[in-house]
Amino acid sequence: MRDLLKQLDAVLEDRKRAGGAQQSYVASLHEKGLNKILEKVGEEATEAILAAKDAQTSGDNRDMIAETADLWFHTLVMLSHLGANSQDVLCELGRRFDLSGLEEKAARSNEG
Amino acid sequence: MRDLLKQLDAVLEDRKRAGGAQQSYVASLHEKGLNKILEKVGEEATEAILAAKDAQTSGDNRDMIAETADLWFHTLVMLSHLGANSQDVLCELGRRFDLSGLEEKAARSNEG
Amino acid sequence: MRDLLKQLDAVLEDRKRAGGAQQSYVASLHEKGLNKILEKVGEEATEAILAAKDAQTSGDNRDMIAETADLWFHTLVMLSHLGANSQDVLCELGRRFDLSGLEEKAARSNEG
Amino acid sequence: MRDLLKQLDAVLEDRKRAGGAQQSYVASLHEKGLNKILEKVGEEATEAILAAKDAQTSGDNRDMIAETADLWFHTLVMLSHLGANSQDVLCELGRRFDLSGLEEKAARSNEG
Repeated sequence: MRDLLKQLDAVLEDRKRAGGAQQSYVASLHEKGLNKILEKVGEEATEAILAAKDAQTSGDNRDMIAETADLWFHTLVMLSHLGANSQDVLCELGRRFDLSGLEEKAARSNEG
Repeated sequence: MRDLLKQLDAVLEDRKRAGGAQQSYVASLHEKGLNKILEKVGEEATEAILAAKDAQTSGDNRDMIAETADLWFHTLVMLSHLGANSQDVLCELGRRFDLSGLEEKAARSNEG
Repeated sequence: MRDLLKQLDAVLEDRKRAGGAQQSYVASLHEKGLNKILEKVGEEATEAILAAKDAQTSGDNRDMIAETADLWFHTLVMLSHLGANSQDVLCELGRRFDLSGLEEKAARSNEG
Repeated sequence: MRDLLKQLDAVLEDRKRAGGAQQSYVASLHEKGLNKILEKVGEEATEAILAAKDAQTSGDNRDMIAETADLWFHTLVMLSHLGANSQDVLCELGRRFDLSGLEEKAARSNEG
């Protein structure tokens, strides 16, 4: 799953620019503007919450995983719309939990 | 930022089990139960949405990134509470976008 | 505006039962089930929040009022789906704020 | 339950202005500003949704009614913060459903 979010950032940046006849779902969200993107974030948050309640009852967590993917995806579109991306969020999480990128940092410091 | 979410999964699993005097925030969420965790997901979704609106006005997207980190974090606690984790979500995203793990798969197939 | 919510309760109860060719939006929500109704509640809450942010910037609060009407409407459908109505909510609000129905109670006690 | 929302509007307007040592919850929300009020709207929407899911399972809808009262209450604070009130929302609902105020209008036309 290495760097999957980084790959997804690249796809989202690419689709942000695409327009015309083959306009993607992502491009249409950007064109409709920030409110439309944020409505989707709110919608998907509610659907993830409902799917989690149902997962607790049914013991089947596949819908919850799919709805969480929808939620993360739309937050990535939101970030992209305002000039940020998944790496900013991971960086923040890493900083808070004192995690991440030790080898990466070591690799970079060796480059210098 | 390689595998940061995988590291975070491990931290969350670890803290899920911790109790007693040094009980962590994560353990207290699990103890309070799924509704409490989902209330936090809803709360952080709202805060991310508000921070995005403010970012558009101010041009400063740091709060939006911090609130999105809060939102992702609480969805990870939700997933963990119901026996799933970040890799399930990334797997779903990779499948949808036909991304991910080609090198990783290649690496694994070379191990065999 | 007297008793408007009570009138709306009656309309909602009526439409809940209507089916067939002239099936209303309300009947279709009930048929799709509780999750669909709750998704709409979450959606309209987000839209009301976004409209309030925009109202603060623009000074025009008409969209916020319309979105709040949408939100209240869908909570009424939710209540109706589970055997409650607006009067239960007003009763709860009246109890908390020590309001309501003094004249009404006086009128009823005179009837006895 | 006649005019309960109108009474509540008056209470909210009154508490909006109150400050100092006896500062009310409502005054403190206004002082913290619109984002704080909207966070509460989002929070209460999530809690109402969770309570509705639980009501469906348990058959007890009291929590759902209480959480809906919380949600309506915080939308009233939001409206008040931006110069609107419950009557604007009821007016919008009445217009959409072609309801409301027939007797009231009749009463007013008799006054002329």
